[in-house]
Amino acid sequence: MGADDKLSGVTTPDAPFLHAARREPTPYTPVWLMRQAGRYLPEYRALRERHGFLELCKHPDAAAEVTLQPVERLGVDAAILFADILLLVEPLGVGLEFTKGEGPVIRRPVRTEAQVAGLTPIDVEAAVPFVFEAARRVRAALGGRVPLIGFAGAPFTVASYVVEGGPSRDYLHTKRLMYEAPEAWSRLMAILVDATARYLNGQLAAGAQAVQLFDSWVGVLGPEDYRAFVLPHMRELFRALAPGAPVIHFGTGTAALLPLMRAAGGDVIGLDWRVDLDAGWAAAGHDRAVQGNLDPAVLLARPAYIRQRVKDVLDRAGGRPGHIFNLGHGVLQQTPVEHVQALVELVHEMSAR
Amino acid sequence: MGADDKLSGVTTPDAPFLHAARREPTPYTPVWLMRQAGRYLPEYRALRERHGFLELCKHPDAAAEVTLQPVERLGVDAAILFADILLLVEPLGVGLEFTKGEGPVIRRPVRTEAQVAGLTPIDVEAAVPFVFEAARRVRAALGGRVPLIGFAGAPFTVASYVVEGGPSRDYLHTKRLMYEAPEAWSRLMAILVDATARYLNGQLAAGAQAVQLFDSWVGVLGPEDYRAFVLPHMRELFRALAPGAPVIHFGTGTAALLPLMRAAGGDVIGLDWRVDLDAGWAAAGHDRAVQGNLDPAVLLARPAYIRQRVKDVLDRAGGRPGHIFNLGHGVLQQTPVEHVQALVELVHEMSAR
Repeated sequence: MGADDKLSGVTTPDAPFLHAARREPTPYTPVWLMRQAGRYLPEYRALRERHGFLELCKHPDAAAEVTLQPVERLGVDAAILFADILLLVEPLGVGLEFTKGEGPVIRRPVRTEAQVAGLTPIDVEAAVPFVFEAARRVRAALGGRVPLIGFAGAPFTVASYVVEGGPSRDYLHTKRLMYEAPEAWSRLMAILVDATARYLNGQLAAGAQAVQLFDSWVGVLGPEDYRAFVLPHMRELFRALAPGAPVIHFGTGTAALLPLMRAAGGDVIGLDWRVDLDAGWAAAGHDRAVQGNLDPAVLLARPAYIRQRVKDVLDRAGGRPGHIFNLGHGVLQQTPVEHVQALVELVHEMSAR
Repeated sequence: MGADDKLSGVTTPDAPFLHAARREPTPYTPVWLMRQAGRYLPEYRALRERHGFLELCKHPDAAAEVTLQPVERLGVDAAILFADILLLVEPLGVGLEFTKGEGPVIRRPVRTEAQVAGLTPIDVEAAVPFVFEAARRVRAALGGRVPLIGFAGAPFTVASYVVEGGPSRDYLHTKRLMYEAPEAWSRLMAILVDATARYLNGQLAAGAQAVQLFDSWVGVLGPEDYRAFVLPHMRELFRALAPGAPVIHFGTGTAALLPLMRAAGGDVIGLDWRVDLDAGWAAAGHDRAVQGNLDPAVLLARPAYIRQRVKDVLDRAGGRPGHIFNLGHGVLQQTPVEHVQALVELVHEMSAR
């Protein structure tokens, strides 16, 4: 990787995370957690008392500090860049805001063919220079301790926010656009595919050593919808990514979509908790690595119970090379930080080979 | 069936719905729709302008009228009793209310071991006599045109309302109770299993010719949770149901749970839209009938597109005896009534053998 050359001395050639992503044997199962930098961490809450969410995202020093917090605290096997999947769509002029408690809101959702026709391609370098700068600083600050993962929202999930205006129960505006105006839908997806590829390639050039695509809400679609309205665009996106660094392809509620996600692409398929890890791996294919898949709610329970459920996930992985331990979705903000620390220790201890 | 003897002359021995539920050949694929009596129907909205939701449920004449509305309007192959899955828990004293727009709210949710210990068994006959009376009136009014389906919420889904207090995003109170107080969870489930069995058997005795268990939210659980916290209770429930009438076992987000739902019981396994019907049938087992599974959002699209998607579902069923056409979940209130009419006609026309 080009970035590794420029940052010689801070590469991580022996990182279990990178080996597992390539299905190579590792001395123990590597573990990191989606949303490992977040509200459950006292040091994150302390920063958030003084700074807004977007403010943290847009200041590379702050974003780098947040990115490193869980690495220091938890001993996880990878860092993931602190950012938000919607930063990329700010230039679309849809009125993106992060409201307190509510999460992201898009004030001017894009729902009609005319509205889609009015969109212009996203100038990624102008939109998110701070993300690339944060990646450079984190990579330098990590000093080779663990690899850095970059990420983006997958086009369907980002499109669903742009169309709905926020989280949705039924995604009816999105589905109506797909069914009633398939060409407009394709144009919206094409704009996002192009921007997402540039965004991820920019993160890789800035020092990320792997990237994850979060198709968090794609599980609202049936397989027929995925085939018609998502798969061709995802293939396009995977083709446009710089070769070399592992790509993790994640969604939730995807038990029936895994063979299609596999067909779309990804070196590592992320599994949510609603599928047994062994069944999910079989569906994703044993020629791929998998990441997952403990229910985040299990971390609310006592460590003795957490141990039992970690064992179940590890047993289902069966020691086969290519398993990266993670939750099935992000860490819940109600999670006791000691339980998260216990989880990382349990995974390392129980998987030691 | 006892009820059939008492109501001789109004039986429906040739009903395609009942034949399909028993995997016997039918001249066309029978179709009914979850929430076929609901807000998308002008005649239902007219009634609701004058009466509250609970008022309709509790007056057998009104409930019977609502039950019959879609039979008259749509030509569906079954009627489903108008009621709500939470009526059964009113006697628990949890403060059940149906608020405008928000749906059901439980003012005093049950979240602790002490709160569960304070619950007493539900006196079903005293709690829902109006449901049984409505079933008798509907059965008589149908005059044998189509069979009558009774229903109940499955214990997990009802318990999740009782514990959360309403719909939930993450079901954390429910999962915490399961993980941290498994004996209290079992007691809550046992109370609901007992009441649900009495409730469904009462509906069958009052004239229902099949029943459906709605485990609508069970898809928030991973398979390991289902095995430990749901499966034993569901087995108990299926064992307690009066033999003879077909039982439909339905949930959403269940792609990975279908083999376990099959193991729990049910003559017909209900599939939501997030699985291909052929794959779902294979997972549920070809020794069961299946029901489903068009995405309700498809009914927002033009009839030409609806036709294409109906064809896909029918093609995947492949004309095999044992398919009951339905949506993957309830009719959305935004659905044009003409699209629902078109759907029923399309299914009958395209499946004619």
